[in-house]
Amino acid sequence: MKKIEFAPVIILTNPQMGENIGAAARAMLNFGLKSMRIVSPRDGWPNQRAIDMASGAFDVIDPPQIFTSLKDAAADLQILYATTARPRDMVKPVYTPRAAALEIRAHEQGGIKTGLVFGGERAGLSNEDITLCQNIITAPLNPDFSSLNLGQAVLLLSYEYFTAADDTPASVLQRGKSPAATHKDLEGFLERLENILDEQGFFRTAELRSSVARNIRAIFMRSDLSAQEISTLHGIITALIRK
Amino acid sequence: MKKIEFAPVIILTNPQMGENIGAAARAMLNFGLKSMRIVSPRDGWPNQRAIDMASGAFDVIDPPQIFTSLKDAAADLQILYATTARPRDMVKPVYTPRAAALEIRAHEQGGIKTGLVFGGERAGLSNEDITLCQNIITAPLNPDFSSLNLGQAVLLLSYEYFTAADDTPASVLQRGKSPAATHKDLEGFLERLENILDEQGFFRTAELRSSVARNIRAIFMRSDLSAQEISTLHGIITALIRK
Repeated sequence: MKKIEFAPVIILTNPQMGENIGAAARAMLNFGLKSMRIVSPRDGWPNQRAIDMASGAFDVIDPPQIFTSLKDAAADLQILYATTARPRDMVKPVYTPRAAALEIRAHEQGGIKTGLVFGGERAGLSNEDITLCQNIITAPLNPDFSSLNLGQAVLLLSYEYFTAADDTPASVLQRGKSPAATHKDLEGFLERLENILDEQGFFRTAELRSSVARNIRAIFMRSDLSAQEISTLHGIITALIRK
Repeated sequence: MKKIEFAPVIILTNPQMGENIGAAARAMLNFGLKSMRIVSPRDGWPNQRAIDMASGAFDVIDPPQIFTSLKDAAADLQILYATTARPRDMVKPVYTPRAAALEIRAHEQGGIKTGLVFGGERAGLSNEDITLCQNIITAPLNPDFSSLNLGQAVLLLSYEYFTAADDTPASVLQRGKSPAATHKDLEGFLERLENILDEQGFFRTAELRSSVARNIRAIFMRSDLSAQEISTLHGIITALIRK
């Protein structure tokens, strides 16, 4: 992957469990983010539980930088997004993760440094820390069960960041080693099938023939057959008429 | 939340660690999914580690049903989606999680029962199990670090399912208890500010006045001020001119 200079920085404030810091690092790297800053980790840094949970992610991301306040951790950043589960009584724009990701990608293109700020496990972000952020991100969740843990929250935001610039086709027929059949191959098969069915008296009446033949055609056309599959179908017919 | 009868069933095949089954249950419920089936859990069922990890989710979702094969687990379902990290040599449609979620929502509307099938931690889904599924889902991931654990994979798919029908506005100004200022309030403030700045000789020349006044206006108009904030700004001006 090419180096992205203005990718968002993940800032974890007051994280408690090393496992969650490790899960966050792993989630970041899953989606190509490499810059983590940690404000006042409860159990200090480095943390063996974090390293154990990260599946090697700390060997690849930049070494986390440690700070004692969000103000210091964010000093060189320009736009901050606070992640919160519940509304606060502040006049700030609230984004879905998806909308925030699109904006962050636009900032990245414009050379603006952004940070995604996450609170600790127990209480989330303090109002003081949210006050330092221009924007709020709140993920849509089942209102009856809306506890996302820290690793999961970092996963969702990193995933949306990644997919906001991802050009994977929404849906594509994976063909393995078999190229698609040509129209001629497909027609050759369908004509052979219809001819044999004619010979066997499958189409009871001439009136029915055209609609039934159309239905049979539709089955095989929907399958988006490969050349190999056409051969297989020919083989099936040959085997069946041999009887 | 209203009961959704045709929401997708989450099927975990050969899961190993109870923790991951628990994380999957929690992730499902975070996004409103309540039906889990488990094929041959390594450590049997029920599993205390799963329950400990689920933050109470097993008290809310339907009791998981246990099967010995995917074929049995999926017997009453109509369309299955196999989740895989790597391509297989099979001719099947491959969806992103987002595209699959839209299709699953459409099936839900049409009364079609769907299942999302996840493999075990070590090897993912077997080719035999994928063969039973009409479709494949592969999440876009950093190609250099693409290990999603089971709980994370269930989280992403459940999240996409939820957001596919979520009507949360992409971005909205959270106003807390302060309604937006009226145009009249805003104009009253800006006129007062400009008048005072005129009195103080802030605008050096008449030529500069209009462009500088326009810039000042832009700052405050961008802020999308509340009525309360306009009052605060009036108070600031009053305090400053008192000096």
